[in-house]
Amino acid sequence: MPTVSADELRRIGREVYERVGASPEEAEIVAGKLVESNLVGHDSHGVLRMPQYVDGVASGQIVLGATVEVERETAATAVVNGNWGFGHVTAVEAMRIAMEKARQASVGLVTVHRCNHVGRVGAYPPTAAAAGMVGMMANNGHGADLAMPPWGGIGRVLAANCVAMAFPTDRDFPVVLDLTTAVAAGGKVRVVLARGESMPEGWMMDAEGRPTTDPNTFVTEPRGALLPFGGSVGHKGSGLAFVLDILSGALSPAGCSRANSEVTGNALFVQAIRIDAFRPLDAFEAEVGRFIDYVKATTPAPGFDEVLAPGERSHRTREERLKAGVPVEETVWERIVGLARKLGVEV
Amino acid sequence: MPTVSADELRRIGREVYERVGASPEEAEIVAGKLVESNLVGHDSHGVLRMPQYVDGVASGQIVLGATVEVERETAATAVVNGNWGFGHVTAVEAMRIAMEKARQASVGLVTVHRCNHVGRVGAYPPTAAAAGMVGMMANNGHGADLAMPPWGGIGRVLAANCVAMAFPTDRDFPVVLDLTTAVAAGGKVRVVLARGESMPEGWMMDAEGRPTTDPNTFVTEPRGALLPFGGSVGHKGSGLAFVLDILSGALSPAGCSRANSEVTGNALFVQAIRIDAFRPLDAFEAEVGRFIDYVKATTPAPGFDEVLAPGERSHRTREERLKAGVPVEETVWERIVGLARKLGVEV
Repeated sequence: MPTVSADELRRIGREVYERVGASPEEAEIVAGKLVESNLVGHDSHGVLRMPQYVDGVASGQIVLGATVEVERETAATAVVNGNWGFGHVTAVEAMRIAMEKARQASVGLVTVHRCNHVGRVGAYPPTAAAAGMVGMMANNGHGADLAMPPWGGIGRVLAANCVAMAFPTDRDFPVVLDLTTAVAAGGKVRVVLARGESMPEGWMMDAEGRPTTDPNTFVTEPRGALLPFGGSVGHKGSGLAFVLDILSGALSPAGCSRANSEVTGNALFVQAIRIDAFRPLDAFEAEVGRFIDYVKATTPAPGFDEVLAPGERSHRTREERLKAGVPVEETVWERIVGLARKLGVEV
Repeated sequence: MPTVSADELRRIGREVYERVGASPEEAEIVAGKLVESNLVGHDSHGVLRMPQYVDGVASGQIVLGATVEVERETAATAVVNGNWGFGHVTAVEAMRIAMEKARQASVGLVTVHRCNHVGRVGAYPPTAAAAGMVGMMANNGHGADLAMPPWGGIGRVLAANCVAMAFPTDRDFPVVLDLTTAVAAGGKVRVVLARGESMPEGWMMDAEGRPTTDPNTFVTEPRGALLPFGGSVGHKGSGLAFVLDILSGALSPAGCSRANSEVTGNALFVQAIRIDAFRPLDAFEAEVGRFIDYVKATTPAPGFDEVLAPGERSHRTREERLKAGVPVEETVWERIVGLARKLGVEV
């Protein structure tokens, strides 16, 4: 498997997007967020998707140079219209607006519509954490991108809505939760498919609602679905997906999950909270640091070497890959090289 | 099993608390929240706990007539000190403050410390929903009340932290999510114990981290633990518990979960969001109503009769019990009658 430095992947991405007409700022953000996903080990949202956003520009799904527009606002809130620009760019701007509002009003809460796919939702809250704030983001599929049934049902009815939160700490990494309400993201099924493996037991149902471990069920008609997470208490994952759908889809004009949506993308719920409105930032960070130590001191269960805090594994992977480079699967690398050369980008 | 009307249970509760020195307002709130839990079918947080809060007053854990104090505030935020009064009273007041702030600033965010047990966290957000707002509440055990391990660990390290959200709809019930991050609340184990039954597979571990279905493991030394919810992806329930601990315990001065906490109670994170800061309330409610219909139209899975929206079952149980009365287990009723008579309350 080729190993490529993060800088080199970023340069290629930047130049690729500039060649298809993105501004330097747009290209920087999209390439940066893709490579950041690889760095933290979420390869399913990494450079593997570089061609997807080139295709999005070609098809007109992604509008180059779109203005991120504040349609309605108060000191603490805003409704943002992404005007179908790059989803990553809209999400970065939405978090920036939420943080700016939090600076003034202690809390900033922004909902977003007409926004293309933002990639990994967990990529945005750490920006707030780095500025001494709590960052949160939730999404739905802008009404589409249906992947799982509600608890007790069959079929693809809800999107695998996500919620992510990040918190500053006095350690060398922030606490980051990045949670999909399905047992796994759809990208995981594609990885299993590509490797010719089976899905774990209890993760999927077929089109008739029967348990299956065959990943083909997810992509071949009549299609099955991933399950909401929770196992025997899957109503919890399902209920969480339901309310995240409302927060992102009904508090914005995008709408909640529905059959036959005419568009796809991400509607967002974005929040930044100024910690020093509640207590001094250093006291907060020290308490979270102490909490991390306490949780990590837990005796490992059979089959585990250690207990990790949310965000810790990603931080380790990032440190490793910054030094050693990002491993990119052969087929993915070939596609990137092909795309780059076609556009006259040196690889 | 005796069936008692909600009004009668509320009267008994009110008089019981007044006899031990609570003000009429305190007695009304505590009795009201207990009975409301029975009405919506959460008997583990209902009148079964009536004696617990009498004991709390007797032991000094609950301070009568305590002032709920705003220690620090901005237009949108507050840190509230419950001064160890009745937890239900503190939580009602915290939600009222969050709503008042949301009326002025569009968002109200309140953290709470020195707060006794508030009972069912899902009891409070519906107050915001009834006022055309989104209501949210999360808690930890004020550093104590440890019940479950983090993912990959053994023992009682984290509290079974909860998060609840409520949303107004154009239907006859609000959407209410009320989610414990353990597979079940500790009260569930006590019900299974009392009935001499076994716990479901995959819900508990013993003190050595081995799977068990024996509910005695939860209460007998060396004690086992409930698992974070999620089944094979229990890192999700564990991660959610971790961040809820930070939101309630580190954004307030209460502190996150820890060994040998000197106090127990609930630290809270309380939020109210004014919906019409984002879009007209009727448009929001109509979209959520449409979403409910769409989800309920899902084909039921084998073993299910229908798909329910979050909050729908509680609403149905409430309607039934308002008409037919609240079933109270024989032993619980005997304890309530005994307590009432001892205090000179007519039953």
